Amino acid sequence: MDGIFPPLPTPFREDGGLDLGLLAAFVEGLNGTGLSGFLALGSNGEAVHVDEEESERVVAAVRRAAAPGMTLLAGTGRLSTRATVEATRRAAGAGADAALVVTPFFFKGSMSTDALVTHFEAVADASPVPVLVYNVPANTGLNVPPSTIARIAAHPNVAGVKDSSGDIGQLAEIVRLAPAGKPFPVFSGNYGAALPGYAVGAAGAILAAANVAPRECVAIRDAFLAGRLDEARQLHLRLLPVARAVTSQFGVPGLKLALELLGRPAGAARRPLLPLAAESRENVRQVLAQARLLTD
Amino acid sequence: MDGIFPPLPTPFREDGGLDLGLLAAFVEGLNGTGLSGFLALGSNGEAVHVDEEESERVVAAVRRAAAPGMTLLAGTGRLSTRATVEATRRAAGAGADAALVVTPFFFKGSMSTDALVTHFEAVADASPVPVLVYNVPANTGLNVPPSTIARIAAHPNVAGVKDSSGDIGQLAEIVRLAPAGKPFPVFSGNYGAALPGYAVGAAGAILAAANVAPRECVAIRDAFLAGRLDEARQLHLRLLPVARAVTSQFGVPGLKLALELLGRPAGAARRPLLPLAAESRENVRQVLAQARLLTD
Amino acid sequence: MDGIFPPLPTPFREDGGLDLGLLAAFVEGLNGTGLSGFLALGSNGEAVHVDEEESERVVAAVRRAAAPGMTLLAGTGRLSTRATVEATRRAAGAGADAALVVTPFFFKGSMSTDALVTHFEAVADASPVPVLVYNVPANTGLNVPPSTIARIAAHPNVAGVKDSSGDIGQLAEIVRLAPAGKPFPVFSGNYGAALPGYAVGAAGAILAAANVAPRECVAIRDAFLAGRLDEARQLHLRLLPVARAVTSQFGVPGLKLALELLGRPAGAARRPLLPLAAESRENVRQVLAQARLLTD
Amino acid sequence: MDGIFPPLPTPFREDGGLDLGLLAAFVEGLNGTGLSGFLALGSNGEAVHVDEEESERVVAAVRRAAAPGMTLLAGTGRLSTRATVEATRRAAGAGADAALVVTPFFFKGSMSTDALVTHFEAVADASPVPVLVYNVPANTGLNVPPSTIARIAAHPNVAGVKDSSGDIGQLAEIVRLAPAGKPFPVFSGNYGAALPGYAVGAAGAILAAANVAPRECVAIRDAFLAGRLDEARQLHLRLLPVARAVTSQFGVPGLKLALELLGRPAGAARRPLLPLAAESRENVRQVLAQARLLTD
Repeated sequence: MDGIFPPLPTPFREDGGLDLGLLAAFVEGLNGTGLSGFLALGSNGEAVHVDEEESERVVAAVRRAAAPGMTLLAGTGRLSTRATVEATRRAAGAGADAALVVTPFFFKGSMSTDALVTHFEAVADASPVPVLVYNVPANTGLNVPPSTIARIAAHPNVAGVKDSSGDIGQLAEIVRLAPAGKPFPVFSGNYGAALPGYAVGAAGAILAAANVAPRECVAIRDAFLAGRLDEARQLHLRLLPVARAVTSQFGVPGLKLALELLGRPAGAARRPLLPLAAESRENVRQVLAQARLLTD
Repeated sequence: MDGIFPPLPTPFREDGGLDLGLLAAFVEGLNGTGLSGFLALGSNGEAVHVDEEESERVVAAVRRAAAPGMTLLAGTGRLSTRATVEATRRAAGAGADAALVVTPFFFKGSMSTDALVTHFEAVADASPVPVLVYNVPANTGLNVPPSTIARIAAHPNVAGVKDSSGDIGQLAEIVRLAPAGKPFPVFSGNYGAALPGYAVGAAGAILAAANVAPRECVAIRDAFLAGRLDEARQLHLRLLPVARAVTSQFGVPGLKLALELLGRPAGAARRPLLPLAAESRENVRQVLAQARLLTD
Repeated sequence: MDGIFPPLPTPFREDGGLDLGLLAAFVEGLNGTGLSGFLALGSNGEAVHVDEEESERVVAAVRRAAAPGMTLLAGTGRLSTRATVEATRRAAGAGADAALVVTPFFFKGSMSTDALVTHFEAVADASPVPVLVYNVPANTGLNVPPSTIARIAAHPNVAGVKDSSGDIGQLAEIVRLAPAGKPFPVFSGNYGAALPGYAVGAAGAILAAANVAPRECVAIRDAFLAGRLDEARQLHLRLLPVARAVTSQFGVPGLKLALELLGRPAGAARRPLLPLAAESRENVRQVLAQARLLTD
Repeated sequence: MDGIFPPLPTPFREDGGLDLGLLAAFVEGLNGTGLSGFLALGSNGEAVHVDEEESERVVAAVRRAAAPGMTLLAGTGRLSTRATVEATRRAAGAGADAALVVTPFFFKGSMSTDALVTHFEAVADASPVPVLVYNVPANTGLNVPPSTIARIAAHPNVAGVKDSSGDIGQLAEIVRLAPAGKPFPVFSGNYGAALPGYAVGAAGAILAAANVAPRECVAIRDAFLAGRLDEARQLHLRLLPVARAVTSQFGVPGLKLALELLGRPAGAARRPLLPLAAESRENVRQVLAQARLLTD
């Protein structure tokens, strides 16, 4: 498993209801752009804003809309082990090829190495599909060190990791400690650490920016792997402000606005996320224009 | 509303099932100790480990077991506004006198003042019972500043706040900015800031330690308010290691172990929380003994 | 040693030179206000902006200007042990009654308990006057836990501690772990934790706000110790915005501006500290007015 | 200016005195290894542990020992602007080709963009040699955002930056915002972000590891620039534990121990830094052996 995956936004109507038709259209718009697959219900997919039944419908909808050969990851981490197991089974049943499981994060002080290893082993034991570990400290307030990931990686049904810490030293250390006997792809979940990640052995990246500029995200990796370092670097720097606008700067509402401006709408966000104010909206538009992603 | 409330642990059986009988017995053991009421499904009640239907049964069970006149708070915060509204209605239907609503905390970077105010106003509008704001940065990774609490407090159905930051300067500032036209009790949710909190105007405290040593927690406040400052201080210092052991040091498993050692068991914790290792168990026992809470 | 101490600002002329005449006048203005003494060259005294020879002159100037019976503390912490020892000897020679020694803080990752204990023991061994430990994480980025302070406190020439963490639970724990065989005053170095600190056993406070409102800071403690809890609380809340303005909000430039507005000027700050912009200046003025400290 | 620079350790005798002979021998051992020059008195050079007169002697000693053509950078940042200006002039007089100026970091809360820009402009105005900005949040507790660096970079005597944040997204953003009209080399000061940094446009790196393994650090960059990506990655991963051992894990004492084990001793560290305990010493030795840096 390698290459570029977008963490799909989950479209909601203005009244808060799921808009699966819009989701299907959005996925279809990304088929054929060079992406390796899709992540349904990651952080950017507002996994924390949908209930279990909705989650299952979202995964099934993406499966139906995805072109043949596209790999479907589904975010199934919950705050308890039992809820994570249940969500993972349902996602597999709905067509996910693998489960991306975020660390439990409410009782941060109790998330010892043993607690995390026990949790992931229980999930991997019960899951019908391979499990990837998902580390996203900006949202969870908890960082999983590489040595802990290495312990979890020893389980035969654990098949990779997405690290969104943005810490490129940590990403390299995860690569260095990867288990010897099986493929163990390491994905960067942070745009700033994506191109640099390829230099230290990352297999690919799962990036909000890949919703916005899928071909460019693919092109950066292709250029780098082909040794066209200048081309990779220049494209990386050009997209940097776009990637920031749709993540740390304006969050999911920024991502959804950017997609709307690009003519591939992904609906509204659910509360407590608010639509962007006018000034921020204009800021997003300018960033897209400066990166030459807006035609006209 | 004032005085001391324990955030009740939620007892689980070894197989992970809810143990409502044990919960009832535990609540009955606290009736008549001077407490003002109970908080069901706070952080210490592992609210994040139970589903919506279980939540409703827990609240109903505490209501039935609580002595007449005890105030019942229920934790009903969820990660989306819509889920919070729904949980609040169900808790009120099950007998809660008020809802304690933790801040949404996954999209930390998007939790602007406007986002938080809009969220709490929507919940307070929809809630059949008064709403209290719950700020617990150690778990959420998000601190709500006093000025934001003051804006939320202007809603007629917002009736108080629990601040577990442990920041005594912030607690005083919340008191200072409290709305003028109605009672607005400020509760400390951190033992270290409880007695100090009374000095700056806190109405009471919601403390894990109040499960362990209810009469002592009540006595500290009573002594302070009666001007017996030395007595209050000495008792506060004596319980300080106990309060730490059942919160920041050993978490919910530490709390549940302490209660077991005291002969008022509250069952096991759900995974990913693990039982304490032998060395930590002995540490908890010693701390209880040194505070003279263990008779044996 | 107990009561209220102001960390004196160090006045500089517009050209950056020391203004010892202004310092003397400022100290004389504080004699007779109920303060227990002075701290020369604390954080607020811009200790990091003066050289060794200037430091000695500042201490001597304060000694001369201080009324008989006022206790003179001098900040003498440096980034190396050898420089701290040297500065402590010079300050003692210039008239300091005790040395307040901030933790070394550049190599944060190497400041183990052993490193800190070894450092303070070396300083205490060499110092002609008693040494107080100074913990100020907001400036140093390093917190010294109570158990480490307890180890340092065992040295016969270590005579107390100033904790500016603002963590009232930590302050109480320092009190709880204080050595049994000698006086070991614990001072709060954070206004928000001063009144609350008296409730848990602090001997006094060292507060920037005591430069601005010395009589009020003394009155809060006196009222509390006399059991006039409402009076203490109300005065504490009234000064809270003032204390914030001259510390975390506007820093040393805010403190110096406030003193200028109150007619007791303490000169300019040295660069890189900049004078406040117009909007911030007006903010400081309003805060003083609302606390009824400006007569106008 | 580009390539690899080691931040030279400053050797002290057991009695704490400077050992300039050992420093000269150490520098001579690095001549001819492919390094572009030296940094005297960086963080790893314990700049905070030497006085002004010693600083001047260190710079002069390195100048004398360095082979012709080696660029000599000197760390000259102090906590006040005036002391920084003075130290910069003295270092230039002693033979430094450029000054590396760390951000002032004591009054973190007052280090606004304006304060930092004003500080660096004053230093650059006064400095006889070009100035490089040095951002090292792990030691200073203060991060300088790329937009602030861009403002400082507009000064004609500011000639580059060393970013030790380890944040590879930030490093790329600094490159992206570099001034158009002049060379503005960006150096990574964090091993983990060095190879990845070349992918996004860093001109080189200033690395503690370059003291330990100078030829290898040079070889990683050479291989990468020549398009031998696998070779660069493998060497990067091999040295990763070494780089960690001599920085975040064991600090300056770890660096000095590693150099001693390699037969190129750099003396002791000054207190408060302590020699490593036996277990840590063995750990350092193993890390060197596993990276195949220890012969026999």
